[in-house]
Amino acid sequence: MDERVRRHAETLVDWSARIEAGDDVIVSLDEGTHDLGVAVARLLGERGANPVFVRQSDELTRAYLQGHEAFDGEFTADPAHELALCESADAYLSIRGGHNTTAMADVPGEIRQAHAKATKAIRQARLATDWVATIHPTRSLAQQAGMAFEEYRDFVYDAILRDWESLAEEMARMKEILDDGDEVRIVREGTDLTMSVAGRTAVNSAASVAYDSHNLPSGEVFTAPVEDSVEGEVHFDVPMTINDTRVRDVRLTFEDGEVVDFTAEAGETVLADLLDTDAGARRLGELGIGMNRGIDRFTDNILFDEKMGETVHLALGRAYDACLPEGESGNDSAIHTDMITDMSGDSRLEVDGEVVQRNGTFRWEDGFEG
Amino acid sequence: MDERVRRHAETLVDWSARIEAGDDVIVSLDEGTHDLGVAVARLLGERGANPVFVRQSDELTRAYLQGHEAFDGEFTADPAHELALCESADAYLSIRGGHNTTAMADVPGEIRQAHAKATKAIRQARLATDWVATIHPTRSLAQQAGMAFEEYRDFVYDAILRDWESLAEEMARMKEILDDGDEVRIVREGTDLTMSVAGRTAVNSAASVAYDSHNLPSGEVFTAPVEDSVEGEVHFDVPMTINDTRVRDVRLTFEDGEVVDFTAEAGETVLADLLDTDAGARRLGELGIGMNRGIDRFTDNILFDEKMGETVHLALGRAYDACLPEGESGNDSAIHTDMITDMSGDSRLEVDGEVVQRNGTFRWEDGFEG
Repeated sequence: MDERVRRHAETLVDWSARIEAGDDVIVSLDEGTHDLGVAVARLLGERGANPVFVRQSDELTRAYLQGHEAFDGEFTADPAHELALCESADAYLSIRGGHNTTAMADVPGEIRQAHAKATKAIRQARLATDWVATIHPTRSLAQQAGMAFEEYRDFVYDAILRDWESLAEEMARMKEILDDGDEVRIVREGTDLTMSVAGRTAVNSAASVAYDSHNLPSGEVFTAPVEDSVEGEVHFDVPMTINDTRVRDVRLTFEDGEVVDFTAEAGETVLADLLDTDAGARRLGELGIGMNRGIDRFTDNILFDEKMGETVHLALGRAYDACLPEGESGNDSAIHTDMITDMSGDSRLEVDGEVVQRNGTFRWEDGFEG
Repeated sequence: MDERVRRHAETLVDWSARIEAGDDVIVSLDEGTHDLGVAVARLLGERGANPVFVRQSDELTRAYLQGHEAFDGEFTADPAHELALCESADAYLSIRGGHNTTAMADVPGEIRQAHAKATKAIRQARLATDWVATIHPTRSLAQQAGMAFEEYRDFVYDAILRDWESLAEEMARMKEILDDGDEVRIVREGTDLTMSVAGRTAVNSAASVAYDSHNLPSGEVFTAPVEDSVEGEVHFDVPMTINDTRVRDVRLTFEDGEVVDFTAEAGETVLADLLDTDAGARRLGELGIGMNRGIDRFTDNILFDEKMGETVHLALGRAYDACLPEGESGNDSAIHTDMITDMSGDSRLEVDGEVVQRNGTFRWEDGFEG
């Protein structure tokens, strides 16, 4: 077994999920994730935890959902056995992989949504545990990234096997600047955008439940802009896939927090539909600053892309509660769609008029030019 | 997909487990069983049932158990999440396969036993559901059977894709004879054994929970001999594997129900250890009559071997409650080890002096010679 698989398991179990003796753990294993599953199983044994291994597979889900179409009836609301399993669990380790990222392509959206709606309490029970989502490299994910398998594997472990403690300390600086600051400004070619983050709390997303961070890899600091404060123009130069469609070079113009103009070099119709979802879909729910320099390229997988060092991302739609003052509801929407801008070139990120990052280099780093 | 996989799924879901709309079902999928899993998933959708797919894997279990050896503590007694899952389920479909039947070879027996002991309530909760155990053919199981993969696949589907309704009717005749009868006598070269089944109830094991039968394939009628009634000699000419050791040509002599003499051409030490397990290990717990003519050879897998048409088997050790009068406890033991005799040659099976089967042919079949 690749030694990195064992280290991945250690990072997942110890750093990310903070598993302790006696913890009841659900390990959800996708197709093609057996090796990481074995390493995690061994470690859960060593920690004295209690695993249940659940099989996740888009092909099983597709077969079930398509079968259910032929059944004359509704989905059962939150089946008792699955709900009981999740409600009794302390942690949920979701290990994604799979052999075909488009295995669900012929399942109608309405069926998926009806099933998702019927199983909301199960999803909430999972999210109430110390859950962590990660991936095990498969050929299918390498293909999605446009990479050779071995190359992709190196990419994945470079992103995951970080010194998380030290990255968490660095990200704490960025969090402090955002928490203390008011106006954030992002400037580069085609982009000059300002927004207020006054009163909002940034999350130091350090790939650990101890930081309210549930992705491995992570490595971003994110907050929620004040809804009506966003002004100016932004160009997202990183391509992405929205609803199975390639979208490229999105440009948005904001006035009073709302998108008033938009273009895209590719996928403009999908973008238009997205903005029309609901009122909140035209406003920002998230400003994120990617700080994981182990991620050095875009792979069309948001788990990685949005954490890339020397990028910022903005999400149209729903804001995260963790960023909002207690009891206050931020921007609300059925969508939360991240779009990414590369800041490694000629650019600057300012907070209250002071440059925090220039051309991708932070103020506390060697080579920074104020 | 092989059309037989779809028919196997139908037999499992409809005939064996009797799944209905709204049933909460656990589907336990071994390595290498994906195709049958997909067919079962589709069918559970069509029936309006609610599946949770659980991953069974000897390699995951091995890693967990070996990891736990390094943990300084006991196994948690019946972890809450797994217990809740099983207690809330209506049915449990166990689909075995795997890539290596000896994947657990280096896990010490004490560890396995300690874990089994700690999870007794979970096992009982599973057995309280409408559970069914079946297999999906894998190359590993073909190897265990000494067969080519395609050849093994044909063998498996011949055994599983029976006309179960008609076999159940035929087996009902055998059950009636045993239920009404007193003395059973088995005669062939090296074998002349008599036992009483008076007051005992035979099970028509027709591969369906509706018949208290939980194996697919099944196809046997079994009962529990009266403990001290067994007299005579028996030769088991079908080889078997006991505790990873090949055992061949076992001969047992019974007096007053107890084994008083034994030999084996191979594995005699294992046999001796087995008989020494406890007092009940020297007495019979089961007489079974194999009636599945779809099974035409021995494959070193008891799920198949004991159901083979034109065989009888006897089990040393524990008797099944279903065969005993309400509240009466039959032979008790930590073991239940089946041994098989081929009746296709010169042989007869008698009940109260009347020949029920001669040379493998039952009294109600063409070619029977009374």
